[in-house]
Amino acid sequence: MLRCDYTIAIDAMGGENSPDKVIEGLSFFLKEENNIFFTIFGKESLLIKSIHKYKLTKSKNFEIVDCSTQIEDKYSVRDSIKVGKDSSMWKAIESVKNKKSDLVISSGNTGALLVISKLLIKMIEGIDKPALAGLWPNKKGTSIVLDLGANIEFSEKNYIDFSKIGALLYRSIFGKASPTVGLLNVGLEEIKGHEELKNAFNKLNSSNNYFEFKGYIEGNQIKDGDVDIIVTDGFTGNIALKTAEGTVNFINNEIKKIFSSTLLGKICYLISYFIFKKIKKNLDPRKFNGGIFLGLNAPVIKSHGSADSLAFYYSIKLSAKILKGELINKIKVNF
Amino acid sequence: MLRCDYTIAIDAMGGENSPDKVIEGLSFFLKEENNIFFTIFGKESLLIKSIHKYKLTKSKNFEIVDCSTQIEDKYSVRDSIKVGKDSSMWKAIESVKNKKSDLVISSGNTGALLVISKLLIKMIEGIDKPALAGLWPNKKGTSIVLDLGANIEFSEKNYIDFSKIGALLYRSIFGKASPTVGLLNVGLEEIKGHEELKNAFNKLNSSNNYFEFKGYIEGNQIKDGDVDIIVTDGFTGNIALKTAEGTVNFINNEIKKIFSSTLLGKICYLISYFIFKKIKKNLDPRKFNGGIFLGLNAPVIKSHGSADSLAFYYSIKLSAKILKGELINKIKVNF
Repeated sequence: MLRCDYTIAIDAMGGENSPDKVIEGLSFFLKEENNIFFTIFGKESLLIKSIHKYKLTKSKNFEIVDCSTQIEDKYSVRDSIKVGKDSSMWKAIESVKNKKSDLVISSGNTGALLVISKLLIKMIEGIDKPALAGLWPNKKGTSIVLDLGANIEFSEKNYIDFSKIGALLYRSIFGKASPTVGLLNVGLEEIKGHEELKNAFNKLNSSNNYFEFKGYIEGNQIKDGDVDIIVTDGFTGNIALKTAEGTVNFINNEIKKIFSSTLLGKICYLISYFIFKKIKKNLDPRKFNGGIFLGLNAPVIKSHGSADSLAFYYSIKLSAKILKGELINKIKVNF
Repeated sequence: MLRCDYTIAIDAMGGENSPDKVIEGLSFFLKEENNIFFTIFGKESLLIKSIHKYKLTKSKNFEIVDCSTQIEDKYSVRDSIKVGKDSSMWKAIESVKNKKSDLVISSGNTGALLVISKLLIKMIEGIDKPALAGLWPNKKGTSIVLDLGANIEFSEKNYIDFSKIGALLYRSIFGKASPTVGLLNVGLEEIKGHEELKNAFNKLNSSNNYFEFKGYIEGNQIKDGDVDIIVTDGFTGNIALKTAEGTVNFINNEIKKIFSSTLLGKICYLISYFIFKKIKKNLDPRKFNGGIFLGLNAPVIKSHGSADSLAFYYSIKLSAKILKGELINKIKVNF
């Protein structure tokens, strides 16, 4: 076994087109970096086939752990816990618990991933709830938004904890010493949000932190890039994320519809082909693949179930950054 | 005074560039229709200047009511009520209370508009809270989303009431007898939303209504157009609306940036100029201007403060549709 700085446990069986997309994504990463070791959990026969297909055989940066079962997307969390102990997801998380790996990635069942991770890896002392954080492209770069759906019920402490954890995640990934934090709120004059939000605002406003507290921000400001970390409850965050996705999809659809509805449109599209290709590349959501469960004793990365190999590669890249940025140590020191 | 089917009270003083944009917007409308009468509330000297500027003098479909003051955007609701009794907004709402008008439109202070309307026009019996509804373009047409920010605290009854009111609004505007209704919820497997939401789901699912209940929908499905009315709490709705706005703005910005960054891009943009103009026209947010306060004894329309004359025209058009669709009668019969 190769000696590397970090080991990442990969559940190779979750989501669509696995394990092929997982192994291909890993092959992209291993062409660029070789200081991270991967333990791949899944059905050995399928993994070996994929490994040959994507010519991973040349690399010494991985090992396979054969797992007889997998947690299906349709499983309830209860069933996942009951029948999942021999599954690739469980075994991958367990390897983090046993300190054989530093981080786990899965494109499988989100609820099961969160609950089994909490069960095995446990919360960092002082943090109540895990957050699901994500990277959002904005006009100036990238921001981190959390919580994207891990917690529906939200307390004043959650807002404060998530502001702190979000700031440390930002610092780990982007290296900015004192990033800016904002709380998402509504803009109608008479409505200033829930009690918990207002209390959190007052506390964050009056305390010194390792981040710069910018107060409230509204939904239309998320993409401006003036705030690095945007904190909200899991219900609102999840709906904001998906509304943004749906809006991008809607606009793409409108643009396509109009360009393809006339001959002139079709010609213009052909002429502008390379420009559109560049726009598509710049806005490619696969670059931002990877939800990060935060607050546990190790980072847990959720790759989108429908993510392809390139998207999976980006979630590995993100994982590597988080490990190199020493996120967990940073959180432990500050809580 | 002309005999018309309906009278609309216009607060001509709120928002940016008033009363000019209001009078110009009205002039667009009066070129198309003349079966609605308008009572315009505002500073007479300014109104007369605008009326001459936009050649409204030929029309007999309006009268002016001189008001000495106006409610500024910066006023708190408390101040608006204290000092606002002679304002254009107050007088316009009062004319609805006194049954001299059927509907009121304003681009002024949203909080003041809502609270003074509640105070004077009062809620329809059986409805607890007013909703703020809006029109959203989708892949197949237009949907109605509510609540967009009037209520932060939300009960099971609110979800049910707003489903019913939203369906009646849709029917009034678009004439569909049994529109489809969905409740906005998160998609993570283990999280099925707040208790109130789940209870509302169960009740809506087991009752017969004049709409088709489609269950939960996620944020990314709003723009698909498979559901006509989307119901959510005011906090989530406001943030979803503004996140969608911010996303459109972000994409526009990216497209412009890339087309203008190279000579080839600039040439392609020039060639595709008419196509882009058409896209811009199709997606023009001004067409969807006008938040609708529902649940009061008359419709109250909030035009966006920054809306221009064309946007104001669209909010008048929307108001006319709501009146002709007999929305308030429909609601009263069903509650």
